[in-house]
Amino acid sequence: MKNILIASTSTIHGSSYLEYILDDLATFFKDTEEILFIPYARPGGIFYDDYTKTAQKAFSKINVRVKGIHTFENPIEAIRNAKGIFTGGGNTFILINMLYKNNLVEVLREVVNNGTHYLGTSAGSNICGLTIRTTNDMPIIYPPSFDALKLVPFNINPHYLDPDINSKHMGETRETRIKEFHNFNTQPVIGLREGSWLHVKNDSILLKGKLSARVFEVEKAPYEVESGTELNGLK
Amino acid sequence: MKNILIASTSTIHGSSYLEYILDDLATFFKDTEEILFIPYARPGGIFYDDYTKTAQKAFSKINVRVKGIHTFENPIEAIRNAKGIFTGGGNTFILINMLYKNNLVEVLREVVNNGTHYLGTSAGSNICGLTIRTTNDMPIIYPPSFDALKLVPFNINPHYLDPDINSKHMGETRETRIKEFHNFNTQPVIGLREGSWLHVKNDSILLKGKLSARVFEVEKAPYEVESGTELNGLK
Repeated sequence: MKNILIASTSTIHGSSYLEYILDDLATFFKDTEEILFIPYARPGGIFYDDYTKTAQKAFSKINVRVKGIHTFENPIEAIRNAKGIFTGGGNTFILINMLYKNNLVEVLREVVNNGTHYLGTSAGSNICGLTIRTTNDMPIIYPPSFDALKLVPFNINPHYLDPDINSKHMGETRETRIKEFHNFNTQPVIGLREGSWLHVKNDSILLKGKLSARVFEVEKAPYEVESGTELNGLK
Repeated sequence: MKNILIASTSTIHGSSYLEYILDDLATFFKDTEEILFIPYARPGGIFYDDYTKTAQKAFSKINVRVKGIHTFENPIEAIRNAKGIFTGGGNTFILINMLYKNNLVEVLREVVNNGTHYLGTSAGSNICGLTIRTTNDMPIIYPPSFDALKLVPFNINPHYLDPDINSKHMGETRETRIKEFHNFNTQPVIGLREGSWLHVKNDSILLKGKLSARVFEVEKAPYEVESGTELNGLK
């Protein structure tokens, strides 16, 4: 029933918004004339309108209309009635906070589990995991919970970045951060590099895009999985 | 009354733990035979002992003994009785969570405001600000609050990193993240580069070390301040 695209990023270097994944989106949303856009990962007001326009510009190339959830009087009903949903990137703390504040976490989980096609990029992908505890974002707001939509039985780390061996910076590498996560949490983490995405379809979880992804399981050495790998055994 | 060192990092590239700041620490702790070490930013158990040994190794060079707070039966009393306190780096969420869990936030604020010399590095510096909302760390645990010790009237961003203009990575730069912070928060943020620290002494807040720091104020362009600049006007 589930049909979800969990993308590391909306944009890869040197190409326009969603360009790298547009062919797949055309197939994914082929029966959908209009999708609901959730721009909550950005600040409110005019930011929502501008952000929705950016999404519309990309989706107009595949003849899909985009309507921002902020333009509906009742966002719960908007989610219930949506034929497809896209949650864009920004700050994951802001996003999850708005979803909780507007009582949208449960309904979003419900409709996506029941088959509403869902696309997430970056922060919109982070919330597909069990928790947002593997976001790279700055905690600029205190949300009521770090629990996420739990659409997959692991956590997502979008924009996954390999250590720079020439760096003289002493801040933690991404890998170190995820190892720290595993001192306090047991679920696997998928490090999705920019240009990679997961296609979740019923019980299948397929790695797509040109790159490999890095999988972190508790008490195991991290390992690479190639594009095309089925990840439905991970939990 | 206050006497605090807020350091970006414990270690700069190519030198040993605390080496770059050791001469200043010798002066800062010259009347202190033993300091209390707070290793809570790392996982518990053996990690605390090992971490305390690392701190002891550095401080033995300036004839200061180091005792880990985890070895005391009553950590509140340990803080009350301490002649000096050092909170090391690690993960800021773990650190603040342990401070709340052990009811140490208030007493730590109180003794430092009353004159107990305090050194923080990285996560131990983050908690000196108003909130931990400008940490770079991964939110691997959900603490009861993001409120911090409020020893200075702004936020700290340790390990401050300038944008890499050659990067093809699409994740946010540090500057972008702090700008996002200012969409939801009004206090200034000091981006402290590795090797820089603030010396807070009574009403004076002096930038020390060889580098400049980057100051972010709401609705202002970010700007650089040179080492030796007095920052007590910021709020």
